[in-house]
Amino acid sequence: MTTSPLNPPATTVDFVDGRTRVFAIIGHPIEQVRSPQAITHELQRRGRNAILLPFDVVPDAFDEVFRHLLSIGNLDGLIITVPHKIRARELCTRVGPLAEMSGSASVIARTADNKWVGELFDGKGCIAAIRNRGVTFDDKRVVLLGIGGAGAGIAVELARQAPAEIHIHDPDGAKTAKVIARLRSRFPAQSFAAGMPALERVDILINASPVGMLDPTRMPVEASRFTPHLIVMDVITNPAPTRLLRTAEASGCMAIYGREMFDTQIAGACDFLLDTRVIVADDVRFDHAQASVSRRG
Amino acid sequence: MTTSPLNPPATTVDFVDGRTRVFAIIGHPIEQVRSPQAITHELQRRGRNAILLPFDVVPDAFDEVFRHLLSIGNLDGLIITVPHKIRARELCTRVGPLAEMSGSASVIARTADNKWVGELFDGKGCIAAIRNRGVTFDDKRVVLLGIGGAGAGIAVELARQAPAEIHIHDPDGAKTAKVIARLRSRFPAQSFAAGMPALERVDILINASPVGMLDPTRMPVEASRFTPHLIVMDVITNPAPTRLLRTAEASGCMAIYGREMFDTQIAGACDFLLDTRVIVADDVRFDHAQASVSRRG
Repeated sequence: MTTSPLNPPATTVDFVDGRTRVFAIIGHPIEQVRSPQAITHELQRRGRNAILLPFDVVPDAFDEVFRHLLSIGNLDGLIITVPHKIRARELCTRVGPLAEMSGSASVIARTADNKWVGELFDGKGCIAAIRNRGVTFDDKRVVLLGIGGAGAGIAVELARQAPAEIHIHDPDGAKTAKVIARLRSRFPAQSFAAGMPALERVDILINASPVGMLDPTRMPVEASRFTPHLIVMDVITNPAPTRLLRTAEASGCMAIYGREMFDTQIAGACDFLLDTRVIVADDVRFDHAQASVSRRG
Repeated sequence: MTTSPLNPPATTVDFVDGRTRVFAIIGHPIEQVRSPQAITHELQRRGRNAILLPFDVVPDAFDEVFRHLLSIGNLDGLIITVPHKIRARELCTRVGPLAEMSGSASVIARTADNKWVGELFDGKGCIAAIRNRGVTFDDKRVVLLGIGGAGAGIAVELARQAPAEIHIHDPDGAKTAKVIARLRSRFPAQSFAAGMPALERVDILINASPVGMLDPTRMPVEASRFTPHLIVMDVITNPAPTRLLRTAEASGCMAIYGREMFDTQIAGACDFLLDTRVIVADDVRFDHAQASVSRRG
């Protein structure tokens, strides 16, 4: 192959170069995530030379990888997904109020002095997706399945909506009791219960467990039909629909997809990853400006 | 924002997703590298869902980052650039013959049992770029400036061309003497000398030092003009041309660009990063097939 600098070969792509700023989503499994397409689009729409890639990291390796990614000088932030959100919150040097309350973190930004600062967006995204369909929470009986990283965040935001009842169901009974105790101390007027009530007594069912992820044959409740008044939300984005949502649609129920929740979080996540002053709750401002004003990008 | 799974917003890019395999080029500085554009293009041309990104890593952090990148399950390989090539060779579990001879490594692939295996492509790329311009080495007096990671590899390939004289000039005299001793033991018939001869006695001048990288005001030899018979090659790709190459062109010399050398290495680097059996020298096959046949990709 003969090349000349006067006739460079057309052998390049136009979406990355040596100045590209790097973001990553860390999870295991990772194939199902949508952030690489959607966050990258949003970063580039904002005029950034930046990209978000999937990083497949098993739990045993998470601590070391999380720490040493700080040593990649042009890697500016992370999205954290299943099963690392709780550990990410523990390893962050600072967290915002929603991460603090729920004990998990989903979006992590680097400060100028090379620390990770995290916040959780799942709860607000889930509630926004439901409200975007015209659903209100007044007098509703709500069941939340799963109290992992995403579920913990959703529980807090759900309590802020003040529905009639919040039932939390998770195989880990001790953890569920602990979460409910913490929620009661913060929301003393709210009705909380552990466990799964009869579905005919439920208005809104939210799956925040991983059951059904990458598996179209499984669902987190045992039912072949629902009554049509039930509103079903599944935080899982792949498959779409999950078996839970297929069952809901076949029963005439409103089925709210994980993608809708995901879409509501894109702009806020990018604000947090890029900006120097970030709103992380309606009522609380979380200021990491002083640490990050000189962040490169 | 109201979204429905039936009407997904057009908010994605099409070049990354959750299944994207990741490659990175590690260096410091990193802005000047061309691999993100060119290697990514070649990977995608081959039908791979894969991308190569820049990772800016300082020398103090290199060892830990290099080790822990093995824990990102979908990160399959690395390109190594200044100043890490020598350390990368030391940290690889196995290396090919060119890395072994030169003591540095530029392309690193992961084996199925999570080891790094490395090889050096700089020397073959440099010689190919010069030969692609119709230049032969017979009876030529050659000066090589710089005996770092790239220079060491070029020195070996240069000796294989059997020019009349090879002069190696580097600020580190002890290291230069050591490299020349090693080369003499392998190429006993070849004439080697340390230091810089008068330029009118030189036919081919190769800059493999970093002097002039990202700095259009500096050049690695003191000269305002060259005689037109001199052939000047600079391995630096940014700026293009470097001050060295500008001076060569202003003097009527043939000026061979770092980009030409870089372009000759793209296909070979991708073969090594992706394939299970890789040619790394004309005369030697380096087989890492048994370790990597089940490599994911």
